[in-house]
Amino acid sequence: MEGEPPLRLRIFDLNCWAIRYLSKRRQERVRLIGDTLRRDGFDLVLLQEVWSEQDYSDLRAKLVGCYPFSHYFRSGVIGSGLCIFSRFPILDTLLYQYSLNGYPYMLQHGDWFCGKSVGLVIIKISGIVFNVYITHLHAEYCREKDAYLPHRLVQAWELAQFIRHTSKAADVVLLGGDLNMHPEDVGIRLLRGWTGLRDAFAEATRFEGCKNGCTLVPDNCFTDKSELLPFPLGIRIDYILYKAISSFTVKCEELKTTTGPALGTDIPFSDHEAVMATLHIWRQGQPVGATLGTADPALADVVAEARTEVGVGLRAAQQQRYSSGRMAVLALLLLLLQAAAALATVAGLGAEQPFPKLSFCLLAFLALGVLVLATGLHVFHTMEVKMLHGTENQMWMALRVLQERP
Amino acid sequence: MEGEPPLRLRIFDLNCWAIRYLSKRRQERVRLIGDTLRRDGFDLVLLQEVWSEQDYSDLRAKLVGCYPFSHYFRSGVIGSGLCIFSRFPILDTLLYQYSLNGYPYMLQHGDWFCGKSVGLVIIKISGIVFNVYITHLHAEYCREKDAYLPHRLVQAWELAQFIRHTSKAADVVLLGGDLNMHPEDVGIRLLRGWTGLRDAFAEATRFEGCKNGCTLVPDNCFTDKSELLPFPLGIRIDYILYKAISSFTVKCEELKTTTGPALGTDIPFSDHEAVMATLHIWRQGQPVGATLGTADPALADVVAEARTEVGVGLRAAQQQRYSSGRMAVLALLLLLLQAAAALATVAGLGAEQPFPKLSFCLLAFLALGVLVLATGLHVFHTMEVKMLHGTENQMWMALRVLQERP
Repeated sequence: MEGEPPLRLRIFDLNCWAIRYLSKRRQERVRLIGDTLRRDGFDLVLLQEVWSEQDYSDLRAKLVGCYPFSHYFRSGVIGSGLCIFSRFPILDTLLYQYSLNGYPYMLQHGDWFCGKSVGLVIIKISGIVFNVYITHLHAEYCREKDAYLPHRLVQAWELAQFIRHTSKAADVVLLGGDLNMHPEDVGIRLLRGWTGLRDAFAEATRFEGCKNGCTLVPDNCFTDKSELLPFPLGIRIDYILYKAISSFTVKCEELKTTTGPALGTDIPFSDHEAVMATLHIWRQGQPVGATLGTADPALADVVAEARTEVGVGLRAAQQQRYSSGRMAVLALLLLLLQAAAALATVAGLGAEQPFPKLSFCLLAFLALGVLVLATGLHVFHTMEVKMLHGTENQMWMALRVLQERP
Repeated sequence: MEGEPPLRLRIFDLNCWAIRYLSKRRQERVRLIGDTLRRDGFDLVLLQEVWSEQDYSDLRAKLVGCYPFSHYFRSGVIGSGLCIFSRFPILDTLLYQYSLNGYPYMLQHGDWFCGKSVGLVIIKISGIVFNVYITHLHAEYCREKDAYLPHRLVQAWELAQFIRHTSKAADVVLLGGDLNMHPEDVGIRLLRGWTGLRDAFAEATRFEGCKNGCTLVPDNCFTDKSELLPFPLGIRIDYILYKAISSFTVKCEELKTTTGPALGTDIPFSDHEAVMATLHIWRQGQPVGATLGTADPALADVVAEARTEVGVGLRAAQQQRYSSGRMAVLALLLLLLQAAAALATVAGLGAEQPFPKLSFCLLAFLALGVLVLATGLHVFHTMEVKMLHGTENQMWMALRVLQERP
């Protein structure tokens, strides 16, 4: 292939914000996305937040002509929301569900119910093996006091580890998705450093779109303006990352983002802007080897920083596990006390006083309810502690490996 | 390395049955296992059901002299129970938690709480990269009516997919663990066919131990004799599987199982017998390529058979999802009815009759309890349906790929 013209690959990535009953003008936007994708003929389309399988089916029916191959990743209660459309045959797929993903009782956030995951799709184009990863990490609801940072860091770490371990036979690795992290955040530095992936926005020869490549901008009519107050230009949380592993070179020739309303309409595709990259891929003279960024001396600092944050999360989770366990024990004690009182009454003790049946029953049910809930919480936080502890240990092992290298 | 003597690798695999407070003579047996491992000097030790991290720490402290490298995989509420001890440096690890693993409400079985997983450990010995996998699949509690078969098949499929996708840069793949499947079961045929792994027992030049390589035998004083009634010789559910991927050849020179009480004692290590393999590994003239068993025409039949079983599980899960959803709706209706009755009483309707406060409260609490539990079940079974559906789809895709190949 050397000397041949480079392979040109056009990628479209978008968080579609297609939550049934909740997202504004969802069906209209999904139709619009489908029409645009059909018209613009990309090679690969990576979509997130397609929560309804019906929306996916509608898109597939519309796109089957230009993107004959597609895959929807199922997970969690609602579904991972991840799907991929491709002009080229999909050879294999694999799903990895993150071990931590928020809390089931945080119903107003709902991330737990989505079973956030990373999906892998293997595609071969002109003899080049592409490992294409698509993901969506836990949302950041409050940047100042981000209770989900440890979970998102565990996800970023698992994503990096999953990519490293599954991409060894690939020629080119692509990752697209809503990472819910700003470019300078520790999670994205960890992901990039630990995998050697490069940021299409930073590497692009030409860029066109929202300033700084932002994908959540105040100008978009669907975004929550108050959330973006500290960031008047918006934030960049949707990415296309890439690297070549074997004897190939990848270069981002052009990166674009959408800027508000789609062509010929009054609405944008989503509350996020789409990211569109044009990559050029060509064979090099000799294998370049895995471009794992372990040569970077700053990587150990990044891993250490991430490990500290995971440690903070671990201590918080241990505290919550302890509190819920204590609450369960107290509820159990109350129940036992009540059982003793009931037995005493049956045995005829204190018969001179009327037995307060109603209050007694109410209290018993309350104690039982607290016992069940607190036990459930204790079980959940025990799992959380296990996973945070496991990740902390893995990061420690990574640090040791990094420090032992020359 | 060609022409050099082959690398000799001794592997020890055991399900330790070390459940705190439940397993008989646990501490004594863990000490015994540690002493034996220290004395016999294996290269790799793969242990399952080490549920207590304290037991792991005790083993590590005892074994650090002869096995300086070790790893414990944390997951679930109790922990995965998986750990590994190695004479050679562990370069990297990865954990994949199976997406389905029984039911949290089956407390008497408890598999759900263990977070059953497959652990990967990467080791380099004399320049040969070993991907060592350790796992423990969902137990089979009733062979005649095995309610967990679909879950175990999903696990076998995910295990096979995980191995395929993560082992591409390895020279040799090893898998050890308690697969809870008989050698002729569809799950093990699927795993072997889809990964190309070979069974050390079937391939061994010499064998010594329990007849047919059984690892759960009636002679063991800890096994449940009634469970083994249909199998007077016992069953073989613990395995060491292997394959070479690149230019190496692996041969099992010797396979042994323990046969009852350990040397110099009156008790066996566990209710399972240990499996010990001696492998010879040498470099071949030319790369043999991935030994994926896709050339086997019977593989498509195996995948189809597994898919049918997963489909049976899917329909059962859909039924349970429907039943729990209906129960939740009924409980909600009852609560609404009660709320209406209470409002009517407050408004003075039916004031001529005494309001049965106690029964009313009991009924309300009962309805609330049913609502919470049924909703929880509905959420759980929805996730189960998603994962079974996803696996069925993946198997369908695999079938298509198999059938399209010449």
